[in-house]
Amino acid sequence: MGEVGKGLTYEGAGVSIAAQDRALAEVKRLAKSTFTRGVLSEIGGFGGLFTLEPENPSGAVLVASADGVGTKLKVAQMAGLHGTVGEDLVNHCVNDILVQGARPLFFLDYFASGHLEPGVAVQVIEGLARGCRGSGCALLGGETAEMPGFYRPGEYDVAGFIVGSCRRDRLLRREDVTVGDWLVALPANGLHTNGYSLARKVLFEALGLDIGSEVPGLGRTVAEALLEVHRCYLAAVAPLLDAGLVTSAAHITGGGIPDNLPRALPDGVGAEIRLESWDEPALFRVIRDAGRVPEDDMRRTFNLGVGMILVVAPDRLGAVLERLVPHGPAWVVGRCVAGAGVRFVGERRA
Amino acid sequence: MGEVGKGLTYEGAGVSIAAQDRALAEVKRLAKSTFTRGVLSEIGGFGGLFTLEPENPSGAVLVASADGVGTKLKVAQMAGLHGTVGEDLVNHCVNDILVQGARPLFFLDYFASGHLEPGVAVQVIEGLARGCRGSGCALLGGETAEMPGFYRPGEYDVAGFIVGSCRRDRLLRREDVTVGDWLVALPANGLHTNGYSLARKVLFEALGLDIGSEVPGLGRTVAEALLEVHRCYLAAVAPLLDAGLVTSAAHITGGGIPDNLPRALPDGVGAEIRLESWDEPALFRVIRDAGRVPEDDMRRTFNLGVGMILVVAPDRLGAVLERLVPHGPAWVVGRCVAGAGVRFVGERRA
Repeated sequence: MGEVGKGLTYEGAGVSIAAQDRALAEVKRLAKSTFTRGVLSEIGGFGGLFTLEPENPSGAVLVASADGVGTKLKVAQMAGLHGTVGEDLVNHCVNDILVQGARPLFFLDYFASGHLEPGVAVQVIEGLARGCRGSGCALLGGETAEMPGFYRPGEYDVAGFIVGSCRRDRLLRREDVTVGDWLVALPANGLHTNGYSLARKVLFEALGLDIGSEVPGLGRTVAEALLEVHRCYLAAVAPLLDAGLVTSAAHITGGGIPDNLPRALPDGVGAEIRLESWDEPALFRVIRDAGRVPEDDMRRTFNLGVGMILVVAPDRLGAVLERLVPHGPAWVVGRCVAGAGVRFVGERRA
Repeated sequence: MGEVGKGLTYEGAGVSIAAQDRALAEVKRLAKSTFTRGVLSEIGGFGGLFTLEPENPSGAVLVASADGVGTKLKVAQMAGLHGTVGEDLVNHCVNDILVQGARPLFFLDYFASGHLEPGVAVQVIEGLARGCRGSGCALLGGETAEMPGFYRPGEYDVAGFIVGSCRRDRLLRREDVTVGDWLVALPANGLHTNGYSLARKVLFEALGLDIGSEVPGLGRTVAEALLEVHRCYLAAVAPLLDAGLVTSAAHITGGGIPDNLPRALPDGVGAEIRLESWDEPALFRVIRDAGRVPEDDMRRTFNLGVGMILVVAPDRLGAVLERLVPHGPAWVVGRCVAGAGVRFVGERRA
């Protein structure tokens, strides 16, 4: 239900903060009213936790998460390229349970359109299957809904549900994080699946680009830049989990670093993020400049090039960075400090 | 993935049967390409089956299903009554895994709208929570997506995902059904969540009714008749499963008895349904007559008052009907015969 909070606070135009807070409190209360003995998670994690063996401290825990692709779908539909949004969705889901310590078991999809075009549906499912194969996750089922009048011609929505598992005593616990732990960043592969409403506004309206136009200074078209596939961090992070080298982790999705990193930290621990530690990908600069987007909005809307942050104890930092070498760039992006929330320090590198 | 087949063949206006068949075959091939050792189900069941213990013949099997509410949502949105569609969704999901022999463990939702109205979202989640509490199912999480431009003002879509469990040696197996087994019907509570596009067309267009109009001869308004909550069969059927009295079962959803009952029967076994065995609820007569809907379309679009069918061996029929007494009406609706598919015999009672 943490995801509900994200939705309720996203943009928020026309909805009072007080109304949002009341709704979120009510949703939490309603969800809690259903909790059974198997539920291990408090509301707000990246995935929900359920055990079939409440008495077994090392029993298997199921970790589940639901996600959508958001308005990245609109870009795919404008471009007529439906083959990658399924992979975006699976990877998003895999990452959400990975930051709890879990590996994927199976995935189900929900695909809804006004009038089903079999060719489009097959392309979307090809993407889902590719993502699932890449993560050793079974595409176990799904629902295809035809809802005349709900979706415009050519438009569809797609949601995904994942279930993974983790031994209960191997779950990542934010309570284990302490001041002084290092924050290790793994790069994002474009916008992933967040911030598309704002990005589309800037690129199509402020800059007047078409889906096939080249983004100024990028050497890539709008479609290419915006449809880059949400990276899956399973291959890079699973060996670290096996070796017990990671204390906690955050998947940087809607809300950016400021909203997601604190979900991986306990009360009393905040984060200092060093802006000079990475080169922000050029696409974010284009959006910031062309849209004159305030820095705080940039940080709360986009991943800014950081797709996942691992929390690592000082004596494990070397081992973590060493094992990440074969998986591409990784860097120390900051450190855990006393306090709360995220503080950005230093100068951004453009 | 059986659900995909349902979607691909639903109505089908403008889509050639050959294109549908090719797409469905492709979807099956794609899903199979992802199957891992834990997958037990072939495509086409009411829920997907996954085991964490592939070697254990009596280990726990996870049974998962995804569903939507379909255009019943449009009725809720017209009526401004958002408090029951969540319960519809949970009950639909619970029934889908119940017919495999499973009890619910947890549920996740996906709620999407163009602009989030917290009051509406809370009403929908109240329904989800009520449904979950009624089935001892934990509402473990969800995703709330705000997708400007995808949904009209006041409209939203909601999908659900359930995971239940069953001991592997207690799963219902359609292979165990034999010619001569009885078919026991449990009544539906209205349209459940299927056939709303056709029902709305007839009631609003052919009959010119408003959402608040009384349905001729029903003594209830359109909103009351169409928003009746999808019945949950858990309380009635779970004791029968515990006692090992049911061989197989079918949840009668989109596609009606002709498309759903065969999913509970093995090759070489068909079903004979006795039309005189029940009084069809009046709402179906109104739709049939006012819409001049051909009988075959009625049978393939609506449940016609039969929400679930249990397949019962002759020597267990008495015990089954006896135990169903406290749960309301139940009747012998037909029998398994040699052959394939469903044959309706006798005269419908109006």
